Amino acid sequence: MRIFSMNDNKITTRAEDYSQWYLDVIEAADLAEHSPVKGCMVIKPTGYAIWEMMQQVLDRKFKEKGVENAYFPLFVPKSFLEKEEGHAEGFAKECAIVTHHRLKADPSQSGKLVADPEAKLEEELVVRPTSETIMYDTFRNWIHSYRDLPLLINQWANVVRWEMRTRLFLRTTEFLWQEGHTVHATAEEADAYARTMLDVYRDFAEQYLAVPVVRGRKTDSERFAGAHTTYCVEAMMQDGKALQFGTSHFLGDNFARAFGVKFTDQSNVEQFGWQTSWGVSTRMIGGLIMTHSDDKGLVVPPKIAPVQVVVIPLWFKEEQCAEVLAAAETLMAELVASGVRVKIDARDLRPGEKIFTWEKKGVPVRIELGPKDLVAGTGVVARRDGGEKENVSLAEMSTRIPVLLDAIQTSLFDRALALRETETVSVDTWEAFVAAIEAGKFVQAHWCGDADVEAQIKTETAATIRCIPFDRKEEPGVCIKTGRPSTGRVLFARSY
Amino acid sequence: MRIFSMNDNKITTRAEDYSQWYLDVIEAADLAEHSPVKGCMVIKPTGYAIWEMMQQVLDRKFKEKGVENAYFPLFVPKSFLEKEEGHAEGFAKECAIVTHHRLKADPSQSGKLVADPEAKLEEELVVRPTSETIMYDTFRNWIHSYRDLPLLINQWANVVRWEMRTRLFLRTTEFLWQEGHTVHATAEEADAYARTMLDVYRDFAEQYLAVPVVRGRKTDSERFAGAHTTYCVEAMMQDGKALQFGTSHFLGDNFARAFGVKFTDQSNVEQFGWQTSWGVSTRMIGGLIMTHSDDKGLVVPPKIAPVQVVVIPLWFKEEQCAEVLAAAETLMAELVASGVRVKIDARDLRPGEKIFTWEKKGVPVRIELGPKDLVAGTGVVARRDGGEKENVSLAEMSTRIPVLLDAIQTSLFDRALALRETETVSVDTWEAFVAAIEAGKFVQAHWCGDADVEAQIKTETAATIRCIPFDRKEEPGVCIKTGRPSTGRVLFARSY
Repeated sequence: MRIFSMNDNKITTRAEDYSQWYLDVIEAADLAEHSPVKGCMVIKPTGYAIWEMMQQVLDRKFKEKGVENAYFPLFVPKSFLEKEEGHAEGFAKECAIVTHHRLKADPSQSGKLVADPEAKLEEELVVRPTSETIMYDTFRNWIHSYRDLPLLINQWANVVRWEMRTRLFLRTTEFLWQEGHTVHATAEEADAYARTMLDVYRDFAEQYLAVPVVRGRKTDSERFAGAHTTYCVEAMMQDGKALQFGTSHFLGDNFARAFGVKFTDQSNVEQFGWQTSWGVSTRMIGGLIMTHSDDKGLVVPPKIAPVQVVVIPLWFKEEQCAEVLAAAETLMAELVASGVRVKIDARDLRPGEKIFTWEKKGVPVRIELGPKDLVAGTGVVARRDGGEKENVSLAEMSTRIPVLLDAIQTSLFDRALALRETETVSVDTWEAFVAAIEAGKFVQAHWCGDADVEAQIKTETAATIRCIPFDRKEEPGVCIKTGRPSTGRVLFARSY
Repeated sequence: MRIFSMNDNKITTRAEDYSQWYLDVIEAADLAEHSPVKGCMVIKPTGYAIWEMMQQVLDRKFKEKGVENAYFPLFVPKSFLEKEEGHAEGFAKECAIVTHHRLKADPSQSGKLVADPEAKLEEELVVRPTSETIMYDTFRNWIHSYRDLPLLINQWANVVRWEMRTRLFLRTTEFLWQEGHTVHATAEEADAYARTMLDVYRDFAEQYLAVPVVRGRKTDSERFAGAHTTYCVEAMMQDGKALQFGTSHFLGDNFARAFGVKFTDQSNVEQFGWQTSWGVSTRMIGGLIMTHSDDKGLVVPPKIAPVQVVVIPLWFKEEQCAEVLAAAETLMAELVASGVRVKIDARDLRPGEKIFTWEKKGVPVRIELGPKDLVAGTGVVARRDGGEKENVSLAEMSTRIPVLLDAIQTSLFDRALALRETETVSVDTWEAFVAAIEAGKFVQAHWCGDADVEAQIKTETAATIRCIPFDRKEEPGVCIKTGRPSTGRVLFARSY
């Protein structure tokens, strides 16, 4: 157990221990930590700032699609979970259950508290694992006619799913997310909307997080509890494992029937609504870390970086300090005017220590500015991703930096895409399949469509079908496990 | 119980029934509704948009003061609440208690679920009523030396305090808020910071919400559980009752001692930290409604209005429609370029119905644009607050509207301030006090400082001491209840 995170500079390398590297990067970059509540995390300011950037971009994109934000209760009455059978099956299992509404002084121990037996709830409340049931019970009253459709609602919220084995950001008992919920007049429109929101996630992942993703549809056994179809975007981490970045569900009229979400159509006939739900969570931060970071610490793509440029003023004699700081302030003002997010690190520390701090935190660009640079009218610009340095004249800084940030953004995406392409293989035999999975690849292979076979493959290799990719070729083939016919390849991988 | 809110246009007048008026305005403006979970509300898109505006402004103001956002767990272990005695006394009483982490199929009833007795938690978890305990247990590990101070953290979150009698926005079991928590090296610095944040709340209330507030300090019996001093801003509602808009607490070293929040000072001596906490919540929306709204519905001050101007295109013949809509779009683009938040209501409804909708929703300015207006090159501009109309040339619209919005903002503040000044009285006898409280006034009166007397006054008149105002004159006087000496007047009122 590491106690003094601030003073512990060593990051385990990926080659040594990938899992420990992930945790070390989080600690070195000061993103999050385990809380005293089992399975729950504390998101520290540096980590939360990334989440805020993610929220800002996504929220704007949702609103461009006509979505409005609202807020629904944290608690779901137990009986609501009983209404949609498949959903209860998938979610009711592990969740936080509120049974009492009062603590009282423990009569047997001074200074201690106990749940007051007289304050037992008539009906238990579940802390929302997701909000389909509580929302749709309300939507029922909001929708009367086709004129009320489509209803396009999003919520930014915390949710709780009791987890036995947790990992910061990737799997925690409580996490933060957004959940979009829409109701449409036709199945076609709802299904198309679910795909539209999947594309919002794809664009966000690729253009902002520089994380290339594969779009596709989940198999029946990997589908969201209660959904008709689950669409997903899947990304490859540096160890070859898949991470589900976001999902978008076409719910059919399953929930509408369970909760009575009905409308009268243009012919005045009562119909059930067609629904979608879609969400991404703080899990994305885990995916961001594992896509770009290196053995020196976090790497954040410029478009999502809360701080894009850190200016490090250097001075060796006290009398140089004022001049260098003034130049740093001027530079910062120019960069801010060019739309760059900048911070000055004016702390009285050794330069190496400062550089090290920002390297670990993944700030995309560092500008060092010392007395000699001022004389030369230049600054030293260093990229976090590749480490290259260049001298840039101060006069050109505010045009050069935005170009450099764009170049870093593109380079991070290209590198991640190249890795995925190199590490994705097509195989046609069971032996080749097992070897490829064992080697940590994304594997395109034929599968007969049988859920039992899918389960068997999972048991034997720990690989799951990540998705049936949208862009797969329809081609006849034979299942790698059973030899039975297949109409196209699906994407297998081990996953987080 | 009203079922079809959308079609029910009648708002009870304030004179008829003030409490019902408040609920009717919320319903007419479509801000929020009761949820199926007792005591919890659903914040609807129109209401949530106001909350988002509030969050944006406050978040920027906090960050200007050096505060960083973070996120801490929803759950607080029961034992944490036992650590600060006064705090537990104040908060542990009514809260949601999680005792189990799994539901299972009810063996006695098919399709039903029960809490699984095998999944009983070893230690109960309390859904946070506020986060002092869980945060400070973590702060202990973040702070080592004076160099780590001040620590300035804020969290946007949901909290739960079990309430028996609830009222939308004003008092709900779950509500949304922000809670700031800071640690400082000295008592003086912490106390000053608590006052600084109180001033942030005052500026926000007065400059953005157009709600004049009285700044002051709470008496010991009204103080936050565990605080050394509670500062507050109090506002007068239209019925003369007080509403506590926000509080900022100087916590002394009470929590630091309970949770071991220590640092080594510059002389290398270990010291306890000095702390503050401060918060405002969705309750502010209730205060906003009750300060400005009228018998026609909601009135929102321009600076906090998600939509500041609604453009209503009018046409009488189908062939006029395209031209009018095009003019509306042009006007909107010009206004948006001037920094105004604009919406066009192009729905195919009767003009009166459209006007009525936006009146109820409190949009500050309405622009009506019909075929005759286009010919004249003008639009009809109507203020929501006073109802005045003026013809404004389309060419001047983008300069006139921002000026008008400012004028409305000022006018709303001035009107609220004038009401408070009129309805605030100074009294020197018990009879005059009782009469003034009965008449719904803010009452400045001398009080001897005895908590029992304060409680007695509350029992007899339902009035509480809202605060000991910062700007009170220090003057000798005698307590209205006991005749004992006093050094200055305190502010009494009935309150929400």
